[in-house]
Amino acid sequence: MAGVISESVIKRLPRYYRFLGDLKAQGVDRISSKELSTRMGLTASQIRQDLNCFGGFGQQGYGYNVQLLHGEISAILGLDVPKTAILIGMGNLGKAVTMHMNFDNKGFRIIGLFDAKPSLVGQVVRNLPVRNAEDLDEFCRENRPEVAILCIPKESAKEISKQLINLGVKAFWNFSHYDLMLENQDVIVENVHLSESLMRLSYRMKNED
Amino acid sequence: MAGVISESVIKRLPRYYRFLGDLKAQGVDRISSKELSTRMGLTASQIRQDLNCFGGFGQQGYGYNVQLLHGEISAILGLDVPKTAILIGMGNLGKAVTMHMNFDNKGFRIIGLFDAKPSLVGQVVRNLPVRNAEDLDEFCRENRPEVAILCIPKESAKEISKQLINLGVKAFWNFSHYDLMLENQDVIVENVHLSESLMRLSYRMKNED
Repeated sequence: MAGVISESVIKRLPRYYRFLGDLKAQGVDRISSKELSTRMGLTASQIRQDLNCFGGFGQQGYGYNVQLLHGEISAILGLDVPKTAILIGMGNLGKAVTMHMNFDNKGFRIIGLFDAKPSLVGQVVRNLPVRNAEDLDEFCRENRPEVAILCIPKESAKEISKQLINLGVKAFWNFSHYDLMLENQDVIVENVHLSESLMRLSYRMKNED
Repeated sequence: MAGVISESVIKRLPRYYRFLGDLKAQGVDRISSKELSTRMGLTASQIRQDLNCFGGFGQQGYGYNVQLLHGEISAILGLDVPKTAILIGMGNLGKAVTMHMNFDNKGFRIIGLFDAKPSLVGQVVRNLPVRNAEDLDEFCRENRPEVAILCIPKESAKEISKQLINLGVKAFWNFSHYDLMLENQDVIVENVHLSESLMRLSYRMKNED
């Protein structure tokens, strides 16, 4: 199935999930594609097209069952699949990611935090001790984390990602500026490049005035 | 000029800027589109096409002058244009954004930090005091910030963004889950939806195995 779904549909799926979650929380049972489209700022036909990629869950004249569709999209996104993750780099960004994100409701379980800085090692964040980066090998061999969240500078990211791939990590949530994908094409990488986002804002402020 | 440049080119510009900055730091004077393409994982013709959108800075047989091109892209991105910004929401995420990001080299100057929580008000982060969110009106009327960085929950984001738009803020770096653009189409919004990124990782782990 995944082969035929375009990047742009995949990009929108989490937004559908978020909006349907809000509707569910508001006690809304069903919604027409027209109403959903108004709320989301998309066209109704766009929504029907997107959801058709996954078999379509709407019924003519009834609209979408909010709870059902929310559950289906959750399953499509794999949020119900348990995944173990470690986070490397417990500076400001790593700490914020650890404390701020709701990992659980997306199936991610953080099982280890790591840093190379002696002043950070031993600190406890969200009930987990920050471990010494030197213990990464041993920890990974014992606990087999599937995902690594990289909150480290570019300079360290190249080496550590190689190490982690050798240890069996197959997916990265990458906050570093290292382009992991270029040298490692058989792992899954989702990048969060905050600097690039800020530069795009700068560009648009200059050009959209 | 801005009218003819596609979203995907704009999306790639910060990456060009980043790679050229690295080359510059390594003392590289010039680079062919072929070599740049290998490093960036793009095709050489893609690079020539992208850079042609801005008049093209390469010379046949010479390649690109790294320092010149880096400077040109900086100017295109407006990184040399000074912009004043405030940040609202000094929880874990807001603190990390304040401390972690290099705003200066993109032309952004943070002039105020705000939170509604009494325990945070008065703290000093990166040499700036966290101000009471109640003082937002007065501060904005006096200091006229152009950009607001929103690190607040969805529930507060709707109201505060309205308030800020009325106070003259015209661009948002939005970390909240509130879809600012939907109700405010004449402001500039750049979103960082971390949850959506994490969900895409989940999707790809499920489907690209």
